[in-house]
Amino acid sequence: MLTLYDYLDSGNGYKARLLLAQLDLRYRRVERDIMAGETRTPEFLAKNPNGRIPMLELDSGVCLAESNAILWYLGVGSPFVPDEPLAQSQALQWMFFEQYSHEPYVATPRFILKHLPADSPRRAELPDRLARGRAALDVMETHLKTHAYFAGERYSVADIALYAYTHVAHEAQLDLAPFPAVRHWLARVASQPKHIQITFEPS
Amino acid sequence: MLTLYDYLDSGNGYKARLLLAQLDLRYRRVERDIMAGETRTPEFLAKNPNGRIPMLELDSGVCLAESNAILWYLGVGSPFVPDEPLAQSQALQWMFFEQYSHEPYVATPRFILKHLPADSPRRAELPDRLARGRAALDVMETHLKTHAYFAGERYSVADIALYAYTHVAHEAQLDLAPFPAVRHWLARVASQPKHIQITFEPS
Repeated sequence: MLTLYDYLDSGNGYKARLLLAQLDLRYRRVERDIMAGETRTPEFLAKNPNGRIPMLELDSGVCLAESNAILWYLGVGSPFVPDEPLAQSQALQWMFFEQYSHEPYVATPRFILKHLPADSPRRAELPDRLARGRAALDVMETHLKTHAYFAGERYSVADIALYAYTHVAHEAQLDLAPFPAVRHWLARVASQPKHIQITFEPS
Repeated sequence: MLTLYDYLDSGNGYKARLLLAQLDLRYRRVERDIMAGETRTPEFLAKNPNGRIPMLELDSGVCLAESNAILWYLGVGSPFVPDEPLAQSQALQWMFFEQYSHEPYVATPRFILKHLPADSPRRAELPDRLARGRAALDVMETHLKTHAYFAGERYSVADIALYAYTHVAHEAQLDLAPFPAVRHWLARVASQPKHIQITFEPS
């Protein structure tokens, strides 16, 4: 059985949980408290030298890191990953955009606000990060004005990757009111079959 | 013919140039001076709303952004992209690692040192970025102690993605002496057929 090393509040972990649910795949979930250093133990670093969740451990013992690579592994060959090379590359374009231009400016402010003390010096990072977060939302808005989804004109791993932290952007003090196409897309994603909430734990 | 919007000193642009050379593909290269705002013009933003090079324009007019998505588009179906799902996902794992845990801490210090004035306030970012850059090199060193390449036990787009800024790490004041496995891997990558230098311009 697949084992997902995870942290329930993580949007990156949620990406994997959401696709596992939509694929009807059974798995074992192992919570690792990132705030308590549980991804920096020698045991964990032996599985992922980069010390991060989510990490997917296969039956073979092989461990796969990086949330978007896990989405690819789980989804390839299913309708959640486009099979045509251009649509596949466009899905990847948006997944790399998510990790480089979105996650540090939407997920990281949420982390600073939700998980660090109110007097954390890291709060000084918020104005710059949130400005870049709004710039990322602007890029998404431009695309979604003329497309229902991010790649191949259907729901895919690219939507899962971008939904994870966008749908909790309010927890990062990012207001989605100026981004109506993004808000409509969030509703389309949430209405997909077998959608689950970020807080959902499989039994 | 393919058109690559590019900036010659960019490691991200070099990734595309290197694979295009190794695939023997002809293309038109259009230099866009990122320091002069040439990727923020209305004409450029119409092609890539995220305002970055490299960007690949296809004969159809479709524009593909994100260096690693461009590598995927050019390489899929060739020996440069693994065809087995796990090896494919492992290549992507390292490409997402490159964009999230390596590029901001190896490429960005190089940019600050090479392209911004000596009195730029951004120099204050260097100690933290370089510490994280050394952490990324450590993760690569751990992998390369027991593997010749990053995915599928052969040279692939994952190696191209990580080579681009690692081989110019000295320009970011990162010393590779403590990373012998990384240095040996750099030499293996540089000895691949049809390798080109970062400064190479196709005629």
